[in-house]
Amino acid sequence: MNVPAPVAQFLRAPTPAAWVDAARQRVPELLLDHANCEKKAAATALSLMFRYPEQTGMAARMSRLAREELRHFEQVSKLLQQREVAVRRVPASGYAGSLRAAIRSDEPGRLVDTLIVCALIEARSCERFALLVPVLPDDVAALYSGLLHSEQRHFEVYLGLARQLQSQLDERIDRLAQLEASLVGRRDPVFAFHSGVPAATTE
Amino acid sequence: MNVPAPVAQFLRAPTPAAWVDAARQRVPELLLDHANCEKKAAATALSLMFRYPEQTGMAARMSRLAREELRHFEQVSKLLQQREVAVRRVPASGYAGSLRAAIRSDEPGRLVDTLIVCALIEARSCERFALLVPVLPDDVAALYSGLLHSEQRHFEVYLGLARQLQSQLDERIDRLAQLEASLVGRRDPVFAFHSGVPAATTE
Repeated sequence: MNVPAPVAQFLRAPTPAAWVDAARQRVPELLLDHANCEKKAAATALSLMFRYPEQTGMAARMSRLAREELRHFEQVSKLLQQREVAVRRVPASGYAGSLRAAIRSDEPGRLVDTLIVCALIEARSCERFALLVPVLPDDVAALYSGLLHSEQRHFEVYLGLARQLQSQLDERIDRLAQLEASLVGRRDPVFAFHSGVPAATTE
Repeated sequence: MNVPAPVAQFLRAPTPAAWVDAARQRVPELLLDHANCEKKAAATALSLMFRYPEQTGMAARMSRLAREELRHFEQVSKLLQQREVAVRRVPASGYAGSLRAAIRSDEPGRLVDTLIVCALIEARSCERFALLVPVLPDDVAALYSGLLHSEQRHFEVYLGLARQLQSQLDERIDRLAQLEASLVGRRDPVFAFHSGVPAATTE
């Protein structure tokens, strides 16, 4: 399954093949962390609604987006149940935390950067779904091929909101996208949906 | 419109008529605070999903409930837009904070109390919707008569989850419900969806 062109162009580096190999071998951990990611995505959208209540257009979009992320959480949870994977806490990778740490602290930079970071996370999710669909078991592949299009849409929503706030975005996107690419390209002590290449695979 | 019997029985005191009078005269503030309440209700459900990930049955219910609260947020926001009410921050009443302060800190008491408090808030919302429908303008009344049934359902979901955790709940419910009744019966410096009787009305 091809990575949608706008997503491939937005990301500065493709996911390493070694991460895809690891994911193929670690489906239960992949699904457990993916369920967490959907919850976190809903929480991030909700936090933007609380932080910027006056931005009513954004709030309405975030509310719909959060509902979609929660629906995905329910779908992944159902798959975990069907596969009889016991839900347990899985270690998060440093991916989202490292991206968040690069967000400027003053407005409007804080909101612009938050939206770009969210766009990057959604774009990476979309790319990884496209890479995973051909190599994962049918039940997971069926879910992921559906989610792929949602992630592309969410990427476009976040990027569109950022562009509404600030027309000259290229430099900031480039900086954050470079960071993002470095995080998925590095060796990572853990395996997660957005991790780098897990250490066990490369050693 | 009658308050549903299970809701009326669960609450220890009806909403004072003076609160309903104030609400009738302060529709924009009512709607603004109501929109906040829906956001907060979604955030509370999401926080339970994060705090107790292993309780997969509860997580699935909370996810669906959060989606519904977000849908309500969107409906109230649309009404605010149609009525050309500028979205602004409104002071919260101490209602939810005072209830939260009464939640025990050790598990399983913490979760049981949280669920009872959520059941009380949903029950009070349901009761207030029923009292408001006959006195509010048609557009608001139409929305509230629809929401009333959701709130009753949410009240039952929370109470059902609490009863699954602990069969002997009467004493704890009684204590928290007494507190809740005292909060809506008191004079309150602010007017809000869950406030007591606002000071300006009684003076």
